[in-house]
Amino acid sequence: MLPQWIIEKKRNGEELSADELGQFIGGYVRGEIPDYQMAALAMAIFFKGMTPAETATMTRVMMDSGEVVDTATLRLPKVDKHSTGGIGDKLSIPLAPLVASCGVAVPMISGRGLGITGGTLDKLESIPGYRTSLTVPEFLRVLQECGCSMIGQTERIVPADRKLYALRDVTATVPSIPLIVSSIMSKKLAEGIDGLVLDVKCGRGAFMKTRADAEALAGALVSVGRSMGKKVTALITAMDQPLGRSVGNALEMVESVQILRGQGPADSTELTLRLGAEMLLLAGVVPTTEAALPLLRRKLESGEALERFKKMVRCHGGNTDVIDDPGRFPVAAHRVEFPAPKAGVVREVDAERIGRASLVLGAGRTKTTDVIDPAAGLSGLVKIGERVEAGQPLATLHSASRERIGEALSIVGEAFVIGGEPVTATPLVLARI
Amino acid sequence: MLPQWIIEKKRNGEELSADELGQFIGGYVRGEIPDYQMAALAMAIFFKGMTPAETATMTRVMMDSGEVVDTATLRLPKVDKHSTGGIGDKLSIPLAPLVASCGVAVPMISGRGLGITGGTLDKLESIPGYRTSLTVPEFLRVLQECGCSMIGQTERIVPADRKLYALRDVTATVPSIPLIVSSIMSKKLAEGIDGLVLDVKCGRGAFMKTRADAEALAGALVSVGRSMGKKVTALITAMDQPLGRSVGNALEMVESVQILRGQGPADSTELTLRLGAEMLLLAGVVPTTEAALPLLRRKLESGEALERFKKMVRCHGGNTDVIDDPGRFPVAAHRVEFPAPKAGVVREVDAERIGRASLVLGAGRTKTTDVIDPAAGLSGLVKIGERVEAGQPLATLHSASRERIGEALSIVGEAFVIGGEPVTATPLVLARI
Repeated sequence: MLPQWIIEKKRNGEELSADELGQFIGGYVRGEIPDYQMAALAMAIFFKGMTPAETATMTRVMMDSGEVVDTATLRLPKVDKHSTGGIGDKLSIPLAPLVASCGVAVPMISGRGLGITGGTLDKLESIPGYRTSLTVPEFLRVLQECGCSMIGQTERIVPADRKLYALRDVTATVPSIPLIVSSIMSKKLAEGIDGLVLDVKCGRGAFMKTRADAEALAGALVSVGRSMGKKVTALITAMDQPLGRSVGNALEMVESVQILRGQGPADSTELTLRLGAEMLLLAGVVPTTEAALPLLRRKLESGEALERFKKMVRCHGGNTDVIDDPGRFPVAAHRVEFPAPKAGVVREVDAERIGRASLVLGAGRTKTTDVIDPAAGLSGLVKIGERVEAGQPLATLHSASRERIGEALSIVGEAFVIGGEPVTATPLVLARI
Repeated sequence: MLPQWIIEKKRNGEELSADELGQFIGGYVRGEIPDYQMAALAMAIFFKGMTPAETATMTRVMMDSGEVVDTATLRLPKVDKHSTGGIGDKLSIPLAPLVASCGVAVPMISGRGLGITGGTLDKLESIPGYRTSLTVPEFLRVLQECGCSMIGQTERIVPADRKLYALRDVTATVPSIPLIVSSIMSKKLAEGIDGLVLDVKCGRGAFMKTRADAEALAGALVSVGRSMGKKVTALITAMDQPLGRSVGNALEMVESVQILRGQGPADSTELTLRLGAEMLLLAGVVPTTEAALPLLRRKLESGEALERFKKMVRCHGGNTDVIDDPGRFPVAAHRVEFPAPKAGVVREVDAERIGRASLVLGAGRTKTTDVIDPAAGLSGLVKIGERVEAGQPLATLHSASRERIGEALSIVGEAFVIGGEPVTATPLVLARI
């Protein structure tokens, strides 16, 4: 079958068969089908969508384009978490060692930041020496030793996604649910996991702005995972204000260590525990999520979760001094506090604007080849519902450049709304699927 | 502006500005914008369409990607005809010399056949020696001397279309009205014409199957042409049965010569005259189309149109012996008559099936690199409304291969419907815009 006939079929809104998707995606990865035919198919998928069965097939075909990690030698249940990305979302970092300290293997393959959304790899790399590029055998050895390992994508895992994602980025075909789902799930299922907890972000700082869109994405993700025989739970969580009190790579590492010490901000700690409880439930370690919470809290209080993190960092070649003394993380040359213009209650902290400010400060990339500044970002962010006095800092901006701080201040200026009456913050977890 | 932002804008259904289209198409022709971004934009245009103003801009931008023939030295009015393509449609060949013999310059740049639709260049090339590739100065010289010249696209005229059309062909983005319109009109307007008559085919042997689709295409073509200051008329004509009695390259040349001798089939002769009358009206040679018909008939009867054709063929290096003696056109090794299974009146001759049979016989291409057999095709086709006896031939199949004839017979078998009662054929011209 000619590739253009497959494109035409999708263009006409028909369902593609496993053979057709296998031929097309396989041919694309082997370089037999050129980028321009893949781009046309991606745009046709953007407009015509895919059925749940088709999305599952697409996921499987993409996963099968490369290696699937063989975790059979790990005797522990294997569960991972994936977040669709939000501002200040550093939860993977405390979560993986916390859950590993409860006897669950967490084989986590993460990504880098792009646009206003940060990436776990960039955050980890603010630890001196931490290697995110391990081979699969090295990855398995760290998992065996520490119960968790956090690496970047290898050349051999889901090569179809690496190629397709780069193409989607330059052809305006990123925001398509079947393409997002097959991209996420092919990579996560290639980790050789038994279960997956999805954190689908919803709100102005997230890719999905509305509850309906977030539920559609969560439903599609869960459906694909379950159809492939995995245990999958999705939480839809609020992303209107940043998560926690810091945004930026080293700054989020500092907060991650605080969470692991049981001294993190209330919201980022709470969501870490909620996600951890779902992971323990999928792993079969606890009978209910309620039963998981005291166990998880104990692992924070006892220092076991933090020790597990330090062990993993050492296994990755990282220097744990920064964990013992977070003051040793990279520090920005310029730090400027943004003062509250008046007294009152914080009504809004616009996550999207905070994300843009962080990007401007040097913490993020507008294109994949940009170099990030690990020390840049924002710390000490106030939270919705908190009372502030006039002149009290709403956030501290960190950057290597005064000019960037000036530019970021004008963005941050519009991010905060302060009002007279008390405010009830939106619940953190909006739904569970 | 990044190309992906332009794609995204169109994907969201917005109108692209002249700057944006100029940047994108210009960048594509210069090789700065890759095929995959053009493919994604083409698919977005397929789904979201273009406004009339946008289509006109797209046409101008494509036309300006190359050379526009400077016909200022030709003192005559310059009018061309374009057909959207049908089975047995050879009318350009008699029409150009016929109209030229009435004092109108016809600078005709034509295409090759693809799929079930034939191409004027392939037909002309069944004349030994006929050169379809002239340089623009040669083209102008022939026009000056003969009043008409029929050539293929040069490298320098609308390079954007050559590149874009090849891409659309392999990305399932051919059937998009704004893309069709800008492709046709950019090439026709680059001929340096004052007026254009469009023959928009409608029916089962045409690209546009329904009257509504044909009218939409005709309306868009006329609107773009007029917005660029040209006189444009469109006829919507029936394409349910083949036009004339022959399909295939040399076979259609034989019929073209018959038309020029005033001895052609009634339908193909009638439409030649109707289109010729519209061309003379746009040229200002006659006050009404009615006044044009006697003039055109005289040019056929006097032999002037035929002489003009022979003169043009000589100017293109062609041997006119085949015109004087059509028996000298290439002849197929195998000729088989397809007999009527019963007596009655011909109710249907399915143009699409006849086109497919002709393709199977060797007259056409399934891909642009296929080599065609000039002698292959069908002749002696009966017409709707004609009475036939059982066993009387409904058509004669011509091919170099017995196997191909066998395969074509099974297609032809279902093309004819013979019934009991008399039938009134659909009018040839369905509408005039």
